[in-house]
Amino acid sequence: MAAGKGVKLYGMWASPAVRRVEWALKKKGIKYEYIEEDLSNKSFELLQYNPITKQVPVLVHDGKPVMESLVILEYIDEVWKGNPILPKDAYERAKAQFWASFSEDKCRDAVRKVYFAEEEDTKMKAIEHLMEIIRVIDQELKGKKFFGGESIGYLDLVFGWMAFWLGIAEEVASFKVVDSKKFPNFTSWINNFINDPLIRGNLPPRDKTLEFFRNFRKLHLASCK
Amino acid sequence: MAAGKGVKLYGMWASPAVRRVEWALKKKGIKYEYIEEDLSNKSFELLQYNPITKQVPVLVHDGKPVMESLVILEYIDEVWKGNPILPKDAYERAKAQFWASFSEDKCRDAVRKVYFAEEEDTKMKAIEHLMEIIRVIDQELKGKKFFGGESIGYLDLVFGWMAFWLGIAEEVASFKVVDSKKFPNFTSWINNFINDPLIRGNLPPRDKTLEFFRNFRKLHLASCK
Repeated sequence: MAAGKGVKLYGMWASPAVRRVEWALKKKGIKYEYIEEDLSNKSFELLQYNPITKQVPVLVHDGKPVMESLVILEYIDEVWKGNPILPKDAYERAKAQFWASFSEDKCRDAVRKVYFAEEEDTKMKAIEHLMEIIRVIDQELKGKKFFGGESIGYLDLVFGWMAFWLGIAEEVASFKVVDSKKFPNFTSWINNFINDPLIRGNLPPRDKTLEFFRNFRKLHLASCK
Repeated sequence: MAAGKGVKLYGMWASPAVRRVEWALKKKGIKYEYIEEDLSNKSFELLQYNPITKQVPVLVHDGKPVMESLVILEYIDEVWKGNPILPKDAYERAKAQFWASFSEDKCRDAVRKVYFAEEEDTKMKAIEHLMEIIRVIDQELKGKKFFGGESIGYLDLVFGWMAFWLGIAEEVASFKVVDSKKFPNFTSWINNFINDPLIRGNLPPRDKTLEFFRNFRKLHLASCK
């Protein structure tokens, strides 16, 4: 392979946004080289490819960097046509993109608020709000194995962080919102997703992830004081 | 026009996200019916079309709702092919989408932090961070009339909120970051954008907008106490 040719992914093992891109690459059957970044000592290459946000994931295709996991998903789908990820119909695509923005804005914000809440009162309110958000997702998943129907599609990759990392957040910050009685469809989806062959082998080790996010939370809370 | 046919936009006059959609519709020459929403007393139609986030803008095309301003921009561009907004090339498109996410996440967060800061120390740090963000944009605009080159394109519509509403935020929350000495390219772009015929006639009245955001800030700060 000539220098600069091919597909490289700059990532960090515990990042849900990086795993999302890996799931998409594997679903498409795209060969790639994975480069693990130490985020406390970022590589020259990462800073050169993504000087603006300096974040992972960065997908480098034939020497050209693509940033932001959702943007990367669309790019991959556009360049490698096999095993489509996003709907082709403009309206179905807009609906999927709306739900993706719901995941990235409303859901992530709601989880973060619970995760970093320190006072009991703030935390209870944040949990209540998060449960309203999960109720919406639970309704959307009614009667479905995956968001995409019978197999994993775009929105499953997008919401995938909630299947694994939400459980990590629950354990780290001592709360419980994933409840099979309250949210039967959401809980089934988590099981279906986690146990799908595409995902099962492509999740970080649970214990190591717990430790990572415990430290991450501690450092964040300390830095806010 | 048959019931349910055509294009409707549910909006609110002071919202930059709504104006962004109006600019795109006008750029494309798409006829639409505008419905002003009272956000303290939302219409039955808005709640029916967007039960999930209940937010404006909602574009209703032949009875089908599309939500989230950036999703609406892509939908419009896909359905009405004339006067293209987004680049067609996959890589150029990914670059534009990266900058759009920079606007919606990093820039908006940075402005919000200054806008709602109450302690002097917090505010100074937030201003410093916002100026770093504006420096990035200023560099990107070097030698360009618009993000899109000689005429208004996708990223101008995306960043348009910074051309008008950032000035409003400065006045409401008593800070100054738009500085022609520090950021000559950004400041020129603001002037080019605001004075473009597409935009000039499609901005809210300044005094009324100032009053609206003064109240908005007051209510927000009070609700956090």
